[in-house]
Amino acid sequence: MREKIYTYHHPITLECGETLPQVDIAYHTFGELNEDKSNVVWICHAFSANSNPIEWWPGMVGDGLFFDPKKYFIVCVNMLGSCYGTTGPLSINPETGKKYYHTFPIVTVRDMVQTLIILRKKLEIEKIFFACGFSMGGQQLLEFVIQEPDVFENILLGATNIQHSPWGIAYNESQRLALYADQTFGEEKDDAGAAGLKAARSIGLLSYRNYMAYNKTQKDNDNSKLENFKVCSYQRYQGEKLVKRFNAYSYDILSKAMDNHNITRGRGDAKEVLSAVKCNTLVLGITSDYLYPLEEQQLLASLIPHSLFVEINSDFGHDGFLIENEQISKILSAFLKV
Amino acid sequence: MREKIYTYHHPITLECGETLPQVDIAYHTFGELNEDKSNVVWICHAFSANSNPIEWWPGMVGDGLFFDPKKYFIVCVNMLGSCYGTTGPLSINPETGKKYYHTFPIVTVRDMVQTLIILRKKLEIEKIFFACGFSMGGQQLLEFVIQEPDVFENILLGATNIQHSPWGIAYNESQRLALYADQTFGEEKDDAGAAGLKAARSIGLLSYRNYMAYNKTQKDNDNSKLENFKVCSYQRYQGEKLVKRFNAYSYDILSKAMDNHNITRGRGDAKEVLSAVKCNTLVLGITSDYLYPLEEQQLLASLIPHSLFVEINSDFGHDGFLIENEQISKILSAFLKV
Repeated sequence: MREKIYTYHHPITLECGETLPQVDIAYHTFGELNEDKSNVVWICHAFSANSNPIEWWPGMVGDGLFFDPKKYFIVCVNMLGSCYGTTGPLSINPETGKKYYHTFPIVTVRDMVQTLIILRKKLEIEKIFFACGFSMGGQQLLEFVIQEPDVFENILLGATNIQHSPWGIAYNESQRLALYADQTFGEEKDDAGAAGLKAARSIGLLSYRNYMAYNKTQKDNDNSKLENFKVCSYQRYQGEKLVKRFNAYSYDILSKAMDNHNITRGRGDAKEVLSAVKCNTLVLGITSDYLYPLEEQQLLASLIPHSLFVEINSDFGHDGFLIENEQISKILSAFLKV
Repeated sequence: MREKIYTYHHPITLECGETLPQVDIAYHTFGELNEDKSNVVWICHAFSANSNPIEWWPGMVGDGLFFDPKKYFIVCVNMLGSCYGTTGPLSINPETGKKYYHTFPIVTVRDMVQTLIILRKKLEIEKIFFACGFSMGGQQLLEFVIQEPDVFENILLGATNIQHSPWGIAYNESQRLALYADQTFGEEKDDAGAAGLKAARSIGLLSYRNYMAYNKTQKDNDNSKLENFKVCSYQRYQGEKLVKRFNAYSYDILSKAMDNHNITRGRGDAKEVLSAVKCNTLVLGITSDYLYPLEEQQLLASLIPHSLFVEINSDFGHDGFLIENEQISKILSAFLKV
């Protein structure tokens, strides 16, 4: 495992029209690139994760697992606007010498893909044997493939969509309203908006899970309680956990990037845009996913030329992609014939 | 239509052990009680509503509608802890001469039913021909019937449950975290926590609706946007609308009362408790209800002796009960044979 930061010393122009004078691109690689460069696996991470999939996808990436560094050269890049090494709101703006905070411009998934392409070239990767992304990771991968269709051989787009739905945006807007309800949000401090962020995470969690999952894990044994139920502690704990490892500014910026994901913007209709995708594509949906429901992946699969649609059963909703390792490994074995 | 406040000049002891020195009970009546007092319809309102169902259930209550004041004597009581006339956090505590605000004690659905029984006696109602309640209104009605089984002839329990689920509590806790993220919450002002309340309402709305409803009504026509989507304005607008008519303290208190709804607390198992229900009971569920899913009403119906279970189709989730008037009227006609 190697964690690195590549500083790209040139300005990049964002979709919103603003420019970042330079960008740090944080990434992890695992394993070694083989001689004919045919063993590249590229993983795009989701919303609040980082460039180390061994941390957030421990059942899938690591020695002896499906994505084994002994076999593959695995690359994962921290997304633009995040807080795990890649330039984001808590980075220093080289033009002012101060942290961006609330002056950080709005970014898009396409802007993120600019940084992925910069890094791909810097690593001298011309072919990606397999790439996968779930959720917002899938949004990035989809844009990546649309922009560089010749690079990819096989891809998995999981629990993701062509354009973020009004429903998904409504969840994000509610989370942002919680951030903005915290009067410290906007202050030039790393922990500005921490109470809002705690609430936002608690809301986000609901969109990733479902009724069944909560019934299975969060029932109280004590039948006499009037408040402070087990699940209340759980929501608060999950909120506090995120506050320790994230910040409200990145949360705000990344949630907006998820919202404006739309492969058709400025391009044409989805069928036309997706006709450019040349690689073998597996589109995966999760039966109980309420945030990115199956119909979104069914639509995606129906419009991508060489694509298969598969669904996995999970009681854990959208979060199923982080949990159902056995089902995903089995499906990937069949798809990649490995 | 008559709106009245009945002040009960005696202390009432709450389930939490605290005492309210007196309570105002705000209620509406519509129509006239007939000679043999056989035309009483009692409606229990849901979470953020008030005692005027003509306002929040305009398709069901009013001249020429299913609940016609020419035919029925209709009663609806504002729930304890709310802000529409019944004693709540913004009422004056007679012991201090100041508003309760954050000192208002935690209440339960059973405490609310105490006030319903006080008012029923004051109105000299001995028989209720028909009573209905949806959502938190159903929780109240269920407790009302368990405590006074001989009073009721026919009831409709809609989109409600025996005990609030971990999932439902998680939604409420997330909304409370948004209230608490607003640093003004706790101040002794009527509008304390207003920004938190706005966020909370935006979250609540998500639990009442679903993906389909948002797709139908909240898609943007402008395909070039990067932010401020139509649905963002909608969420903010709905939040602001609630802020104008509600307050954060009542929202906090009522959400906790919803959470601790549990007919088995201190009583025995649900089957035993529900065996006391003697009236004809219709239990209604909404197919797309994600907050109080069908399985909760199926369980309720399976345990109430003289009960029927029906489901209605709606694209509008839990909120379907406020929208699907035609289906509900048709079902009620058949059930009540009127």
